[in-house]
Amino acid sequence: MKYGIAIFPSKKVQDEANSYRKRYDSHYALVPPHITLKYPFESDDEEIERTIIPALDEIAKKTRPIDIEVKKVGSFKPAANVLYLKIEPNEDLHRLSEEMHEGALEGEREHTFVPHITIAQSLSDDEFSDIYESLRMSKFDLTDRLDRFQLLYQLDNESWSVYETFRLKGE
Amino acid sequence: MKYGIAIFPSKKVQDEANSYRKRYDSHYALVPPHITLKYPFESDDEEIERTIIPALDEIAKKTRPIDIEVKKVGSFKPAANVLYLKIEPNEDLHRLSEEMHEGALEGEREHTFVPHITIAQSLSDDEFSDIYESLRMSKFDLTDRLDRFQLLYQLDNESWSVYETFRLKGE
Repeated sequence: MKYGIAIFPSKKVQDEANSYRKRYDSHYALVPPHITLKYPFESDDEEIERTIIPALDEIAKKTRPIDIEVKKVGSFKPAANVLYLKIEPNEDLHRLSEEMHEGALEGEREHTFVPHITIAQSLSDDEFSDIYESLRMSKFDLTDRLDRFQLLYQLDNESWSVYETFRLKGE
Repeated sequence: MKYGIAIFPSKKVQDEANSYRKRYDSHYALVPPHITLKYPFESDDEEIERTIIPALDEIAKKTRPIDIEVKKVGSFKPAANVLYLKIEPNEDLHRLSEEMHEGALEGEREHTFVPHITIAQSLSDDEFSDIYESLRMSKFDLTDRLDRFQLLYQLDNESWSVYETFRLKGE
């Protein structure tokens, strides 16, 4: 069974992201707008309960809520025709994602952590260029306080369901 | 902002429900398969944090995991062209839903609690009759242990995002 760890930002930010995702994101109906902390990994009930959840509890207990800003759109081109709301560099968020890959959660990372909220994917090159052209100069002014993350699992239809919520409880 | 309280059953049961929802349920992409404990209600951040979540924590603390069975399909016809996986009568689940409407969570119930997982809705009368005919004699043999419920909120696109998970921790 496939699991992943992500943050759903506030309703305000999710609504903003969805206004683009609705038209441009092939995953629009599969999962709400999110910041991925740990990409999909294989596990099972037993490992989740015995080692993953206690490790996530520990992380949540010592991590403080994280304030983020979004000012513009970013792109993974040429690696992929993906556009995203770029989260401004944030040491706390970076650290949180690092911890999702250490100890009981150890695992190779395929990519450097680029904190983002995807708003467009699976586009043709032409579509991508059009949309990027129209969005790259847009200025955003979104701020948000992230105070929880979620452990999700994937259903057979590729959509994601929440297994557990972890509140950031650090002082 | 609109909130609701629901249980997502196990992946096995969600996958089974989705095999029908994909074709027959207009809400397929808006929320994973679920058992509604409390229908959508208006609230705000402050009330949620101050009164709703503490009340739900209390309920979760004293409620034991609940074993359910699904043996057949039910229908809300003539009230609505809705088909659902019928959850066999279950006192514990009934009690849990009652508690979602008492004390800080008080609110009038529009309907008697009929525990179910919707698999078809917004059908025309003809579609409904066809599908009901083909499913009413089907025998299901699903069992599941429900060990958590979730507080959700609705986004502008009418989809639902999870705010918090509550584990049933009763002994």
